[in-house]
Amino acid sequence: MKYEAFVELLEQDINNGRYDQDGKLPSEDVLIESYQVTRYTLRKAIAFLVERGQLYQVQGSGIYLRRRAKKGYFNLDDTQGITSESRGINQNVETKVVSLEEIQFKDAAFVPEGLSLSPETILYFVKRLRLLDGKPFVVEHSYYIKSLVPYLNHEIVEQSIFHYLKEVVKLKFGFADKIIRTEKLTQEVATLLELKKDDPTLVIIDEAYLSNGALFNYSKLYYHYENSEFFMHATMK
Amino acid sequence: MKYEAFVELLEQDINNGRYDQDGKLPSEDVLIESYQVTRYTLRKAIAFLVERGQLYQVQGSGIYLRRRAKKGYFNLDDTQGITSESRGINQNVETKVVSLEEIQFKDAAFVPEGLSLSPETILYFVKRLRLLDGKPFVVEHSYYIKSLVPYLNHEIVEQSIFHYLKEVVKLKFGFADKIIRTEKLTQEVATLLELKKDDPTLVIIDEAYLSNGALFNYSKLYYHYENSEFFMHATMK
Repeated sequence: MKYEAFVELLEQDINNGRYDQDGKLPSEDVLIESYQVTRYTLRKAIAFLVERGQLYQVQGSGIYLRRRAKKGYFNLDDTQGITSESRGINQNVETKVVSLEEIQFKDAAFVPEGLSLSPETILYFVKRLRLLDGKPFVVEHSYYIKSLVPYLNHEIVEQSIFHYLKEVVKLKFGFADKIIRTEKLTQEVATLLELKKDDPTLVIIDEAYLSNGALFNYSKLYYHYENSEFFMHATMK
Repeated sequence: MKYEAFVELLEQDINNGRYDQDGKLPSEDVLIESYQVTRYTLRKAIAFLVERGQLYQVQGSGIYLRRRAKKGYFNLDDTQGITSESRGINQNVETKVVSLEEIQFKDAAFVPEGLSLSPETILYFVKRLRLLDGKPFVVEHSYYIKSLVPYLNHEIVEQSIFHYLKEVVKLKFGFADKIIRTEKLTQEVATLLELKKDDPTLVIIDEAYLSNGALFNYSKLYYHYENSEFFMHATMK
């Protein structure tokens, strides 16, 4: 099996709980036999998954799983969005478009610190509610700068906007800066999440840049405090 | 100037706002002149800070700052703790020890999923309140497994426990798994944070492992929702 296909398959098997029982991968020889890969490919894949924080090696003992991906945990390191995140763990994502409109920059409800655009700059403003397995999960308020994202419609925003921007518009993504904090819910967002005003919410403010450094999208995401948990791997120094 | 010293100085200058005004670094030649480094050292340092997410390069245009470190923002990628985090941004950290006791594993108020220790295993249980510039910032409930962390006293836990474990006990840190979520405050924690019961709190559950894969510490951190914001860099694919 080719390296890329093998990494994907191994990651899938890990995420689907194939090795959860004892939290440890089988020996190299067993893995080579069961996946039909070379030792070189195996070691390269293991190194990659160690680097990604999914596995760790203990000298003379074996290769262990770090916290397993599972329902309700979202990896904060990952910026591919809920649709692709949840796909790996067999969750059903539903998107309800609350509104889609064009507005001027000066009428935006919030603006990233330090962002200066002409007041008349046109933005798409999208409000969506996303449900995971039928339960309200996150309300997204997203702005897209129309000069960089020239077209959005109801059908597109009902699906994965990022997939559309990547595959159809062919935008070259660069990086995202995120601010994470906690707030009290407004009545508007609380109603969508089926919670009460002033209930807690984990908020992620996401600023997404193209590879040329241009901001093309910024969003404020309000997560349901009972239906969402995030997960992060860190290396200690 | 040597590479290590230069990286540290450049990072400090960035964090202290030296390049905040236009969000862009001066040209290579100006930097070489002003820091007295070679072009090779400069480029190596820039590449490192790009990798760390502090800078980004735009072809033919220059090197730009990503979101600047500043008061109240904590980088979620970093696990060195508040003391060292805040040092870089000139904030004053104060630690109030609420309690320090030895308990048995079976009496712990919370336990990491999947952790199985004998019920009589001795743990240190530390409760601390940390203040930043005099304002309540986080309440920490931390367990340390005594067989791996044989000694803690009031004086040590009033300072940086991680510094002590690293420099004095010489523990070899491996990695940390973190869960991030939002909860409503209990009365006990709310009082320490000078907030009200049921106010929102950002919670980080932190599980810290040695390089041999042994868990030596797990903590639950309750952040003040108005005094704390976290920041994260992400690469988009």
